[in-house]
Amino acid sequence: MSQRPILYYLGPEGTFTHQAALQAQAGLETALGRAPRLAAVDRASSIIERVDQGRGWGILAWENNVEGTVVPNLDGLINAPRTAGFARLGLDITFDAFVRPDHGVLTQVSAHPHGLAQCRAFSDAMGLEEVPATSNAAACRDLGPQQVGLGPALCGRLYGLDRYRAGVQDFQGARTDFLLLAPRGQAVELSQAWARAQRGGNTASDTCAYESILALIPLQTGPGVLAGLLDRMRDAGLNMTAFMSRPIKGQDGAYSFIATVDSAPWEPSLHTLLEDLAGRAVWVKTLAVDARMPRPDPPVDQWMLPVGGLVAGRSSAGEPTAISKNEELLWPTM
Amino acid sequence: MSQRPILYYLGPEGTFTHQAALQAQAGLETALGRAPRLAAVDRASSIIERVDQGRGWGILAWENNVEGTVVPNLDGLINAPRTAGFARLGLDITFDAFVRPDHGVLTQVSAHPHGLAQCRAFSDAMGLEEVPATSNAAACRDLGPQQVGLGPALCGRLYGLDRYRAGVQDFQGARTDFLLLAPRGQAVELSQAWARAQRGGNTASDTCAYESILALIPLQTGPGVLAGLLDRMRDAGLNMTAFMSRPIKGQDGAYSFIATVDSAPWEPSLHTLLEDLAGRAVWVKTLAVDARMPRPDPPVDQWMLPVGGLVAGRSSAGEPTAISKNEELLWPTM
Repeated sequence: MSQRPILYYLGPEGTFTHQAALQAQAGLETALGRAPRLAAVDRASSIIERVDQGRGWGILAWENNVEGTVVPNLDGLINAPRTAGFARLGLDITFDAFVRPDHGVLTQVSAHPHGLAQCRAFSDAMGLEEVPATSNAAACRDLGPQQVGLGPALCGRLYGLDRYRAGVQDFQGARTDFLLLAPRGQAVELSQAWARAQRGGNTASDTCAYESILALIPLQTGPGVLAGLLDRMRDAGLNMTAFMSRPIKGQDGAYSFIATVDSAPWEPSLHTLLEDLAGRAVWVKTLAVDARMPRPDPPVDQWMLPVGGLVAGRSSAGEPTAISKNEELLWPTM
Repeated sequence: MSQRPILYYLGPEGTFTHQAALQAQAGLETALGRAPRLAAVDRASSIIERVDQGRGWGILAWENNVEGTVVPNLDGLINAPRTAGFARLGLDITFDAFVRPDHGVLTQVSAHPHGLAQCRAFSDAMGLEEVPATSNAAACRDLGPQQVGLGPALCGRLYGLDRYRAGVQDFQGARTDFLLLAPRGQAVELSQAWARAQRGGNTASDTCAYESILALIPLQTGPGVLAGLLDRMRDAGLNMTAFMSRPIKGQDGAYSFIATVDSAPWEPSLHTLLEDLAGRAVWVKTLAVDARMPRPDPPVDQWMLPVGGLVAGRSSAGEPTAISKNEELLWPTM
């Protein structure tokens, strides 16, 4: 291709997805030697449609450490015939407070209602009245002289605003992972190129650690179906880092399972599993393969556990009494 | 208790949660012979706090068939020392369009940005300009004479508005399940009373079908841990209807697992499993037990499957070619 490829993202300009798209653009330039052109679309489903039609690449919010998986985007990818994920990219969710260079007395704060809710301590401390906007970007774009706008860092540059204060969100440590999408026929090559770039240009692919996202639907339902499926994964020696069930759209009682495993589809353990499953009464599709970040694999210490519950016959606070055991497990007390 | 109990819900008045709380109020009156008093609070986490302090009951959005599990509420319940769920209640998410009785020419539509996005076909057809509000309820409460407000059915009565049109959401069939919460010591009795009322007052508890939500944390991590856990559930003959992993807060690489199974903790199969697990290197807590709705358990037919993928060695469109197999599984083509 001599034409510059397109990377579709969920607009408007100035959203967190736009910020992630800019990171992806830079990452792709490093990996491929040329940067894609960014194009905003107004619905996440339009991104998958365009990639499916072979019109370019895409970037989608995939999961957030507070809100969990972005389920509509997951469902979209499961149902997309020609699209797969090839890289993952993490973004810290931090809000900056912006004002107009010609601002007057500040009496209001404007953002998407979620943005307003996430920065309430800042707004309360300043005594600002909340003014909801359709998006954080729209709030910053249309900012009044008496208003403080909340949004990702790039809003300042984008809309000619001054940064009044950085990092005004109540909760520190929120993070969203984005998935980069391509037509299926390009996904393997792109994931390998991205992985090489991540590892500083080392071309030996076996120095890269990959993870894959699989969609699985056992054709039978009932007790033990899922256990049988996971036995095969264990027997293949695959480490699973995320797992969830999703009802099949419009089919009460039928489920798909989404598993993230520490391997690439072409590596022996996962290759064998996929061969095995695809020959059985299980529908299988690889949704994504990406170079994973290094990650600890710690044993779980007592102090990490939630309050309450039982472990090895004891309550987390000490010896179990019959009453606390009944209460933790919801057994009747008679 | 002679004092009327309180049921806390996420306010403001006029939200879908308020609508669900009204249903719960009626259901509890049927089950217990007295209706709780409703009290709105301004954060979901405050609901769990109040129930944990023994100040009353609560209702929380639990999962939605489009958006999936409400993860912050799930995390809240996992970490609540003294709170458990005892009933589940489903609500169809339908938006009505409201106007003031003295309305003039209608030029704008007002709602929470999510509400605006979910009714766009209606607003576009009427040529209305979108005006975001902090919540659908706030939009209806503060409605201008030139505005159409979007919200749940109860907003009409609540704010003295006329219903202009019913069911204006783009997507038909969205549904949210809510979980009713009580202090742990009351949860078993309440779930049984609710179940009896659901079954028309039949007092034999074995005519009720229950489901339980379990939180499990294996103290070891690594390949096969989850498979071993699910093997025990299969061996106990338990049917699992939902399953997901959640990272333990602040602990990269350590996970809790949330399983919904078709049984009550006091029924033999689940009782034995809980005894077994609680004696092993697994932390376990029963998050909820509730009378489940009847539900089909269908085999998965070919036509229910997503487009693409492989099943029993074939692509869903017919015979697999080497290329389509590579593409569905993301195997390199060399």
